[in-house]
Amino acid sequence: MVGGGTNGFIGAIHLRAALMENRVELVCGCFSSDPERSKSSGRSYLLPENRIYGSYREMFEREMEVPEDERMDFVSIVTPNKYHFEPAMMALERGIHVVLDKPMTFSLEEAKMLQKEVEETGLVLALTHVYTGYPAVKEMKARIAAGELGKLRRIYVEYPQGWLSERIELLEGNNAGWRTDPSLSGKAGCMGDIGTHAWHLCEYITGLKVEEVCAELNTFVPGRMIDDDGAAFMRMEQGVKALLSASQIAIGEANNVNIRIYGEKGGVQWNQENPNQLSIKKANRPEEIIHVGNNSCLGAGALWNTRTPAGHPEGFIEAFANIYRNFTLTVMAQKSGEAPAHNMLDFPTVYDGVRGMQFIETVVKSGWSDGSKWVKWVE
Amino acid sequence: MVGGGTNGFIGAIHLRAALMENRVELVCGCFSSDPERSKSSGRSYLLPENRIYGSYREMFEREMEVPEDERMDFVSIVTPNKYHFEPAMMALERGIHVVLDKPMTFSLEEAKMLQKEVEETGLVLALTHVYTGYPAVKEMKARIAAGELGKLRRIYVEYPQGWLSERIELLEGNNAGWRTDPSLSGKAGCMGDIGTHAWHLCEYITGLKVEEVCAELNTFVPGRMIDDDGAAFMRMEQGVKALLSASQIAIGEANNVNIRIYGEKGGVQWNQENPNQLSIKKANRPEEIIHVGNNSCLGAGALWNTRTPAGHPEGFIEAFANIYRNFTLTVMAQKSGEAPAHNMLDFPTVYDGVRGMQFIETVVKSGWSDGSKWVKWVE
Amino acid sequence: MVGGGTNGFIGAIHLRAALMENRVELVCGCFSSDPERSKSSGRSYLLPENRIYGSYREMFEREMEVPEDERMDFVSIVTPNKYHFEPAMMALERGIHVVLDKPMTFSLEEAKMLQKEVEETGLVLALTHVYTGYPAVKEMKARIAAGELGKLRRIYVEYPQGWLSERIELLEGNNAGWRTDPSLSGKAGCMGDIGTHAWHLCEYITGLKVEEVCAELNTFVPGRMIDDDGAAFMRMEQGVKALLSASQIAIGEANNVNIRIYGEKGGVQWNQENPNQLSIKKANRPEEIIHVGNNSCLGAGALWNTRTPAGHPEGFIEAFANIYRNFTLTVMAQKSGEAPAHNMLDFPTVYDGVRGMQFIETVVKSGWSDGSKWVKWVE
Amino acid sequence: MVGGGTNGFIGAIHLRAALMENRVELVCGCFSSDPERSKSSGRSYLLPENRIYGSYREMFEREMEVPEDERMDFVSIVTPNKYHFEPAMMALERGIHVVLDKPMTFSLEEAKMLQKEVEETGLVLALTHVYTGYPAVKEMKARIAAGELGKLRRIYVEYPQGWLSERIELLEGNNAGWRTDPSLSGKAGCMGDIGTHAWHLCEYITGLKVEEVCAELNTFVPGRMIDDDGAAFMRMEQGVKALLSASQIAIGEANNVNIRIYGEKGGVQWNQENPNQLSIKKANRPEEIIHVGNNSCLGAGALWNTRTPAGHPEGFIEAFANIYRNFTLTVMAQKSGEAPAHNMLDFPTVYDGVRGMQFIETVVKSGWSDGSKWVKWVE
Repeated sequence: MVGGGTNGFIGAIHLRAALMENRVELVCGCFSSDPERSKSSGRSYLLPENRIYGSYREMFEREMEVPEDERMDFVSIVTPNKYHFEPAMMALERGIHVVLDKPMTFSLEEAKMLQKEVEETGLVLALTHVYTGYPAVKEMKARIAAGELGKLRRIYVEYPQGWLSERIELLEGNNAGWRTDPSLSGKAGCMGDIGTHAWHLCEYITGLKVEEVCAELNTFVPGRMIDDDGAAFMRMEQGVKALLSASQIAIGEANNVNIRIYGEKGGVQWNQENPNQLSIKKANRPEEIIHVGNNSCLGAGALWNTRTPAGHPEGFIEAFANIYRNFTLTVMAQKSGEAPAHNMLDFPTVYDGVRGMQFIETVVKSGWSDGSKWVKWVE
Repeated sequence: MVGGGTNGFIGAIHLRAALMENRVELVCGCFSSDPERSKSSGRSYLLPENRIYGSYREMFEREMEVPEDERMDFVSIVTPNKYHFEPAMMALERGIHVVLDKPMTFSLEEAKMLQKEVEETGLVLALTHVYTGYPAVKEMKARIAAGELGKLRRIYVEYPQGWLSERIELLEGNNAGWRTDPSLSGKAGCMGDIGTHAWHLCEYITGLKVEEVCAELNTFVPGRMIDDDGAAFMRMEQGVKALLSASQIAIGEANNVNIRIYGEKGGVQWNQENPNQLSIKKANRPEEIIHVGNNSCLGAGALWNTRTPAGHPEGFIEAFANIYRNFTLTVMAQKSGEAPAHNMLDFPTVYDGVRGMQFIETVVKSGWSDGSKWVKWVE
Repeated sequence: MVGGGTNGFIGAIHLRAALMENRVELVCGCFSSDPERSKSSGRSYLLPENRIYGSYREMFEREMEVPEDERMDFVSIVTPNKYHFEPAMMALERGIHVVLDKPMTFSLEEAKMLQKEVEETGLVLALTHVYTGYPAVKEMKARIAAGELGKLRRIYVEYPQGWLSERIELLEGNNAGWRTDPSLSGKAGCMGDIGTHAWHLCEYITGLKVEEVCAELNTFVPGRMIDDDGAAFMRMEQGVKALLSASQIAIGEANNVNIRIYGEKGGVQWNQENPNQLSIKKANRPEEIIHVGNNSCLGAGALWNTRTPAGHPEGFIEAFANIYRNFTLTVMAQKSGEAPAHNMLDFPTVYDGVRGMQFIETVVKSGWSDGSKWVKWVE
Repeated sequence: MVGGGTNGFIGAIHLRAALMENRVELVCGCFSSDPERSKSSGRSYLLPENRIYGSYREMFEREMEVPEDERMDFVSIVTPNKYHFEPAMMALERGIHVVLDKPMTFSLEEAKMLQKEVEETGLVLALTHVYTGYPAVKEMKARIAAGELGKLRRIYVEYPQGWLSERIELLEGNNAGWRTDPSLSGKAGCMGDIGTHAWHLCEYITGLKVEEVCAELNTFVPGRMIDDDGAAFMRMEQGVKALLSASQIAIGEANNVNIRIYGEKGGVQWNQENPNQLSIKKANRPEEIIHVGNNSCLGAGALWNTRTPAGHPEGFIEAFANIYRNFTLTVMAQKSGEAPAHNMLDFPTVYDGVRGMQFIETVVKSGWSDGSKWVKWVE
């Protein structure tokens, strides 16, 4: 693992998600750019001293000397965006599979280089667009693919948070610092951190791509160097129109991801803060609430990603664990030379990562300009 | 009453809203452009034959011959947009106060003429932007005015409906026909019918005006001659950014008006389909749910518009009745020569109507153009 | 009208409910036992001086001298329980139909006398168990009658309020005084005031009668002379088991009536504070949410009692108005000698009133005794 | 691990809950009374062949020969009630700590014997009353202990499920068989399986004990040998009155645990199917919704049991994991000779298990009798 020291929360989430299914063991890590913090974090994770490293460069070098059956099979990289590319590339070059946090890289160029390396090595790269790990999201995707909603027309996707309503990046002890610093975060702030999730849900669930964007970006908090709010009209394939909003100054909101998709025959709605239910709406019919669970009315894809009966809520960590499980089984299948079952393959990959970086390019290009209304997708 | 025959629903709503407070009596009406239907509707409302008219022109002429204490004091006009201006003007010219359905007129020019007439006659014109009649909406307005949310930043307002998902305007027995016919409805369809409500809530609640708009209008249903869906970025005074969406093809949705407003110190959310509660969100504080009712924590403005204790839900008809009551008391005060109390004055007027027509002009101008991104408010 | 002065809230609700449909006019009243308050209330209702009375005895006497076509056709009695019987009896004896607030009388004996008088005169008596006026409740009743839930098994009905959490009956300006005074309220406090509503919903919706009760009554607030909380197991016909709870010390609760009914084939749930939706639950099926409205999936009975399309919420006053409308149409049919249509008859009558008083007798007998577990329904 | 083969769901939940925190490893198990199924389950859990056993007797014997540092430190027992006592006793006799599913044993006598053994050995026994593992439940307990609700008065606790609405115990492939068989389940069906959870929440959250019970048990499904539904009035210490209901024939319900507690100064409500929010209600105040998360307004106890920021939902598996973590840290502290921190100790123990069996005795004694109304708690 690279990053994920005990001072953040997302590293521990990755770890729990990976461990939960009894197929993964934490064998080594560099948990912080501060060697002392890396050591203490590694000890709290009960690692032996000699597998806790002070830098990821050291880790990759020294791990290649470890006997192959004790060596890490994959690495999870949960660092600031600036430090995604180098460790990922080092891993791929050494035959190590990769789990990467989104957005995939600091720049679109880096993303394309990773894509090339993945294609050349045949290794597996999973991108933790965690919301795709929820069974309800799998179910939406499957129902749309099966035509239950008819030809699609309208998408509303929202991602309001409020934690950056003040300039907390000036304080210690939070994760706002690098996220609001363009030299660590990249071209976009809010749009890179959470806008990419919202955009990804649109493409992941519908299987359709965005073609043109008209965006408005805002920086509401004085002194901040990067967008903390934004919205976009998105013209997608097949005439679908999506309205995306993301904000980190929607004060009082926690992590209120919400998506509604309407077609000619029906609509569907899902809210991440109450993730175990899915609403299906049709004309002149009662609204249907699907309570996610393995004895409910779910398709095979959602069921594969469900651990409990309805009424026993699963959450964010299980969504993460679904990405890890599907990734792990794919890696294990590749190692054993067997073809993985279809469902195992369903996790975001390097291609989602490249498109995510293109989304950032496109939305930034449109969002800060008052010139032409529509901006073509930046390839 | 002009319009409101028994084949529509909104006429009966106006009537109940007007009657509920025991201050208004239905004395005459022309309920349909079809004289037979007007007669039968009038009879079902228990009117005497000689006060049921076959045309509004006839009504206004003949009513002037009725003794003044039996004559109508005000007229409610609930016809298609095309037929708002003429009866309203006829009423004002005869000294009769007016209640008008929104949007106020067919064209902006007509709206300005009504404004002039109202200003010259001193008569009262109420516009039934019904959602402003809900106590929870009054409470939002009051709290924002009192600074509880701090300086405002972000508004999300949505108005999804699904009833025009198919081309039902080709069928009989619904109200879709004139709404989707530009020769009766005006320049806008969805944006005129419900987009104006969404826009009006933004200005009404915040007291701030929209200055520039970047909109996207859509016609999803083939063959339809007018927008059935749209969205807009709105730049408001004081740097507030609003995101508006309205749709009549959001299949399965009924009348899901939803507004969220975030300032520097707090946010507020209200949903019309569950209108008796209001959510207040602040940083590092529990969400507060205000259950509307006259023993609850409401300010004077909301209380004035509340009839029941909390837990005894009020609804759409009571919101209408609040507009009627406030209008009626204003008219009665004017007749008696007394100054009405402050709260009585709070209902949408001819000025809201003019701005509403300007909104339609602006959003249509921007929404169908792929040219310049921002369009200045059309005066 | 008897009672309903401007110092209470329920009188104004009755009035609005009665007036809303343009079939009823307020012609006279005695609005308070205090003649001055009666006068001022009557004036605020815009009544002429000579039709505002200082006592109901005076009212009934003097009204008989009014020409028949100006005389009241029915009287609404909205006084404390102690003063239900006498004015109701006086009305019936004079050929005047009656609308009565629940519980019907002070004692079971009075209730039986009213029943006898109604049977002998053939006049109409409506009891305002208001919750039966909601379309969603009509829909539950109809679906159960049609067998959609299969043979019934289990009912949970709850009615928590919190307004009597402190001894506010010692203060002025609220309606707690007579409700907590056994000399005005009768044998039961909480169980008479709201427990009767909860019990009535069970019998009304299912069409089944309670046969045996095992109850527990409590007085939580020190010094109070009557129950302010209670619960009961109820054995109903056909082996149905109901669990009823009612409380006026459930602090923070407003008027949270909630009923869930489960049969062999399905369950149904309704909550009064969000009255326009109905949940239907079945095995291995999504939950269905029926959004009440006249373009939705309702049966004829519910539709008859619906005024608006789905998404335009109706509330407490409309539920009241449904009782008034059905009562009024029944009275009008009787006057004209025509048979009323079936749906018009659906409102609680004197028979519901008698059973309500029997419920109070039974639950009080069981609830304060630690002796035998089950008490047979008191006839 | 004893039990928990791949044909059930709860074994896998225990395993994930135990593994998630990177402090526990699965080292051996007997996963089924069918040796073949035990083998295949063990292999799917990636155990070596020599640590997968065909019976728990074999497991305990052979494991004592394993070197101490490879031997299991604790055993999780997730078998039918009939097979709780013997493996638990065998573990305790061998110095192995125990995690047991509820109800603790088949009979009260067994429970008392376990208590004696725990007291004599000083070993740790955790009982997986999983709902006590939710942060929101910890928060309720802490707030009540701190007096925020004032002196308590009223509790409503409900646990409706619908999965036993038909006699599915006659089919294969579900867990209904032993639960409805008194020779495996014990004296109670529904009340033992889920009624104990509901009762336990009352005592756990309030710190008060039940003293007397008046219950009604039902068997709705013909042919079933044990209760599938029931309700109870419970008189608790300090005059608190609790109303408990539990049902497995509430068709369409999944696992709808719901608890509301009202005191003199406030009320609190929690629902397990939406477990990350907690409602606080007070007189004349807005309802407060606490969104659980580690940046929210939680006390230390709830925070200790929280892994994510608000808006990142945790669920059933994390609640289980909290019990495992607190148990594990207690065991580790005991091994190291250090005193565990206070919060670590908060999990249900053998004493909760004994009281749970007493609850079953009491509620069965009252519930099937029509004799005396109140039954004293069976010691």
